[in-house]
Amino acid sequence: MYQAYSYLSHLYCPRCSREYDASVPQHKCLCGAPLLTAYDMDALKIQFRKEAVMVRPPSIWRYHELLPVRTEKDIVSLGEGITPLLPMKKTAARYNMDDLRLKDDGVLPAGSAEARGAAVGISKLNEYNVPDMVLAANGHAGAAWALYGSRSSICSHVAMPVEAPLAVRKECAASGADLQLINGFMQEAEEAADRASERHGWFDASTFKEPYRIEGEKTTGLELAEQLQWNLPDVIACPVGAGTSFIGLYKAIHELIELGWVRSAKIPKLVAVQTESCAPIVHAFEKKWTHTVETPELYSAAFEISTGTSAGDFLVLDAIYKTKGAAVAVCEEDLLAEQRLITREEGIFSSPEGAAVFAGVRQLREENWIQREDRVVCINTAMGVKTPDIMEGSTPILAPGDDW
Amino acid sequence: MYQAYSYLSHLYCPRCSREYDASVPQHKCLCGAPLLTAYDMDALKIQFRKEAVMVRPPSIWRYHELLPVRTEKDIVSLGEGITPLLPMKKTAARYNMDDLRLKDDGVLPAGSAEARGAAVGISKLNEYNVPDMVLAANGHAGAAWALYGSRSSICSHVAMPVEAPLAVRKECAASGADLQLINGFMQEAEEAADRASERHGWFDASTFKEPYRIEGEKTTGLELAEQLQWNLPDVIACPVGAGTSFIGLYKAIHELIELGWVRSAKIPKLVAVQTESCAPIVHAFEKKWTHTVETPELYSAAFEISTGTSAGDFLVLDAIYKTKGAAVAVCEEDLLAEQRLITREEGIFSSPEGAAVFAGVRQLREENWIQREDRVVCINTAMGVKTPDIMEGSTPILAPGDDW
Repeated sequence: MYQAYSYLSHLYCPRCSREYDASVPQHKCLCGAPLLTAYDMDALKIQFRKEAVMVRPPSIWRYHELLPVRTEKDIVSLGEGITPLLPMKKTAARYNMDDLRLKDDGVLPAGSAEARGAAVGISKLNEYNVPDMVLAANGHAGAAWALYGSRSSICSHVAMPVEAPLAVRKECAASGADLQLINGFMQEAEEAADRASERHGWFDASTFKEPYRIEGEKTTGLELAEQLQWNLPDVIACPVGAGTSFIGLYKAIHELIELGWVRSAKIPKLVAVQTESCAPIVHAFEKKWTHTVETPELYSAAFEISTGTSAGDFLVLDAIYKTKGAAVAVCEEDLLAEQRLITREEGIFSSPEGAAVFAGVRQLREENWIQREDRVVCINTAMGVKTPDIMEGSTPILAPGDDW
Repeated sequence: MYQAYSYLSHLYCPRCSREYDASVPQHKCLCGAPLLTAYDMDALKIQFRKEAVMVRPPSIWRYHELLPVRTEKDIVSLGEGITPLLPMKKTAARYNMDDLRLKDDGVLPAGSAEARGAAVGISKLNEYNVPDMVLAANGHAGAAWALYGSRSSICSHVAMPVEAPLAVRKECAASGADLQLINGFMQEAEEAADRASERHGWFDASTFKEPYRIEGEKTTGLELAEQLQWNLPDVIACPVGAGTSFIGLYKAIHELIELGWVRSAKIPKLVAVQTESCAPIVHAFEKKWTHTVETPELYSAAFEISTGTSAGDFLVLDAIYKTKGAAVAVCEEDLLAEQRLITREEGIFSSPEGAAVFAGVRQLREENWIQREDRVVCINTAMGVKTPDIMEGSTPILAPGDDW
């Protein structure tokens, strides 16, 4: 039987159900909603075997049948995946929990989970022969897309808020991208990318303006399931800015259930974590709304997830409601305290966003929303060393001969 | 037949052949040389099968039989390995080469190859129940050992030159380690660690003062061979400071040959790359010496490999001579130019040390020491984003409404 490299079928709108051709570049739905990717699940159910996947080389491309890139030759790869899934024993004890784990997506090329989305997104642009792309990004995504762009010879134009972390700006500039710092926050960066796309004809690859970043981010969920021997955990907690990784996670779970690779009886509760400085999803969740209201973007150490408005808000909220999950906002103080403790106890210098997730889980455990015996997986989306400035403290300097 | 988790046999001195018991902590040989680790190769030849290794989870511990940790429960892991092996097509074309690849050891926990040595070294200290360890480090090693120390509950004391990169100092401090900056270079840091070890009874885990870091670093070579379907390349080029990774690489090749997993007919030429500012190995190689002379440690962008003296110098030189390899020094200008080009062409923001390796390979290719048809693997030992300061350039700032 003929086996395709990808079982990509078409794109569809999760709001109005319109369908789109996946053989040409697409952006959003006419109705303004993000597009999602559909696969030929009937064929996959017969031809895609998890036993085959598990002996392939360790990268996200071991799941190629369930990814949208049509042929192997178009793949633009820096060797992304499989990231560690680590027990967090000391933290679990501190939270009075039996089984707490970390999926450490900082251990990826360019040091962030954005490598997953960039690898798949840029590979598709490469397949479509797109010469120039523009995107607005809070930080890591800009650097990741620019680096994968360089590898593929796609010319990258990146709009990043001027407050984005210095190391990430340098990383993005090092790629040779046309980087523009924007005197403003994400919304202003998106407007600049919009205008530049219109003016110069550059493909707009900003969040939710192309459908394949979500497919890349989905692989966190696929790996997670494989690493747990296809037994999904009780709770998965994830930082949420625009929400692409959250939506990817939910999509991964659904596809795994449809394939019959995991048991459908137990769908993990998905927890979205934001910071109090900018928490539109949490606000909407508390009101039981299906959409968010635009929220001002204030400074947070977790700069990456300070996103006041998202075209995918309804998908994030739907995933929370459908999985009986939750949304929780943490304060700066708790976030920074957890970052310090996790580094000291577990040896993992997580991103502020990753630390926010632990602060959120701690909060839900204290409220007994998370039970002691629940198996919980937290997702860290970047290496802390990419944003070292938020770590305080001075270090003594010894002169030769001084006593230690 | 009984299968051991580790086939560790004993420790031995590569200079005077004295043997040491590996069941208790050891430092150097009485003669002052570093100790190397021996395994029961006769048993391994019968019981250790590469086919079994290849289906294990992707981490350095898939090679546990050939690593020194006696039982799985003592392993301290942040999920280290398997790192990407990437084709470098544009760079190969620029160098007029057919097959150039990068082993990207930046994609590891803590963003550097030092995770390999720290994982194995700290796991052994954990096995020995050592409560406190001290080490001198130029940067990445200090951060990696401190982070693995935190995870295992070993108390870490780190002496680092005051000029070490800021992000790495912050990373080390974040682990909760007792970090002391030393007003001087590596030699002064080593002296401080020495004195503190004597004074406080802390285990000295500085370079070559304990034998297992090399075993961890060896796994780069094991992975490399596996990723090339057990066909070793013609040349492997590696940055050399003290030389632990270089010695590990050579040891890996020898053990693979002894196991019969690779063909012995073709031993890769090992190339040591240093910077002109501090190149004792290159100097000794040019004079055909078996030892180096102490060399002043001057500032280089490749701070990690600015090491004026090394107790392992004779092992590095021996590996070069035995493999018909070479040692090459690169100037700052070439190193920085290659870092920029590799990031722009290949999307890999390498460490300055990794960039030095490419500059070295380029030099050897221009001299036709490397042939066009040679398969060459370069090793990058850290993520460039951990030392972003050496990247220059300013970025334009757009105000809302400005034209891009």
